[in-house]
Amino acid sequence: MEIVVLRYGHRHVRDYRVTTHCGLVSRALGAKKIIICGEQDLKIIENINKIKKNWGGDFELEFAESWKKTLKEYKKQGFTILHNTMYGIPLQKKIKEIRKAKKILIVIGSKKVETEVYHLSDYNIAVTNQPHSEIASLAITLDLLQDRKELEKEFSNSKIKIIPSENGKHVENSK
Amino acid sequence: MEIVVLRYGHRHVRDYRVTTHCGLVSRALGAKKIIICGEQDLKIIENINKIKKNWGGDFELEFAESWKKTLKEYKKQGFTILHNTMYGIPLQKKIKEIRKAKKILIVIGSKKVETEVYHLSDYNIAVTNQPHSEIASLAITLDLLQDRKELEKEFSNSKIKIIPSENGKHVENSK
Repeated sequence: MEIVVLRYGHRHVRDYRVTTHCGLVSRALGAKKIIICGEQDLKIIENINKIKKNWGGDFELEFAESWKKTLKEYKKQGFTILHNTMYGIPLQKKIKEIRKAKKILIVIGSKKVETEVYHLSDYNIAVTNQPHSEIASLAITLDLLQDRKELEKEFSNSKIKIIPSENGKHVENSK
Repeated sequence: MEIVVLRYGHRHVRDYRVTTHCGLVSRALGAKKIIICGEQDLKIIENINKIKKNWGGDFELEFAESWKKTLKEYKKQGFTILHNTMYGIPLQKKIKEIRKAKKILIVIGSKKVETEVYHLSDYNIAVTNQPHSEIASLAITLDLLQDRKELEKEFSNSKIKIIPSENGKHVENSK
C-alpha cells in the first residue's frame, strides 16, 4: 500500500512544530511522502531532511500551493482520498473496505477545513468523534491502515540506528 | 485498566500546543488523567476544562512540580510505569505482558529526559525506534494497551455530540 499524507492549511511559524510532528510521524509510520499545503517553510524542510539523512529511508517532503489542485491530481492518479475529521465515520468501521485500496492520500487538516474537502474525499473518517489532535489521528490512521506492520518498518541507508534497550540509550553510528 | 499520563518537562508558552494535544489525546483515547510536570499553565487548564464541559466524561488534569515525587507516589500505589522513549524495546513485543497490569502510568517526555526516568520506570518502550512525536507515541501506546477498544469509548454528560456522517458535519447540542 502506497500512502501519501496531505497537510492542509499549514500556517508559517504558528504551525511549525505541529506540522514537523506530522512530517516525522508520516515518515516513521510508513507513509511515502508528505505534501504540505501552505506557505513554504525552509525550517521544516531542513529539519525533515536532516532526519532523513541521519535515520535513512526514502521519505519525501513537498510544499504545494493549492490543496485542491493536489487533491484532484492524486485522485486522477488513482489514489483513494481519506479525510481525517472528527465529524466522519469511525475509521474502524470502514477499515476493511479502505484497506483494499492500493494508493491512499490521507488529508489532515486544521480547524477550518473548507467544505469542498469533504466533498472531494472518498471517505470522511474519524479517529473517535472527540476533539483531540491531527498528529494522533494521523498516527492511528497509519496504524489501522497497515495493521501494526508499520511498527516493524526498517529504514535503509541510515547513519544512526538505535539498538532497542530495556534501560538506557544504545545508539549505533556508522559515519 | 486505569491509565494515567505523566507529561514530563512541560515548558510554559513554548510547549503550549503540544502539551494541549497530549491532554486532549489522553482524554479522547481513554486515559483517566494527565499530570503535567512543569510550570502551571492556566491556558491549558482552561482549554481542557472547556472541552470536558462541552464534550463530557470525567477526565482530570493536574499540574505537579516534581515528576520524581509523582512517579514514586504512583509506583507506591501499584501503578506500572511505562516510559515512552525511542531508545526502548518496541512496545508490540511487550504488550501482552504489559496488558496484565491493572494500573498504568505512561510517561511521555521531551528531548531531555533525565536518566533517572529510565531507571524508575518498569518498562522503557518505543513506538518505533525512529524520531517522531510524543503525541503520536502516546496515541499508539493508548491504542495498543486497550487493543482498539478506546476508539469506541462513550463520554457521559456531554453538551455536544457528533453524529458520525459520510459527508459534512452533524452535531447534536443539548444545552
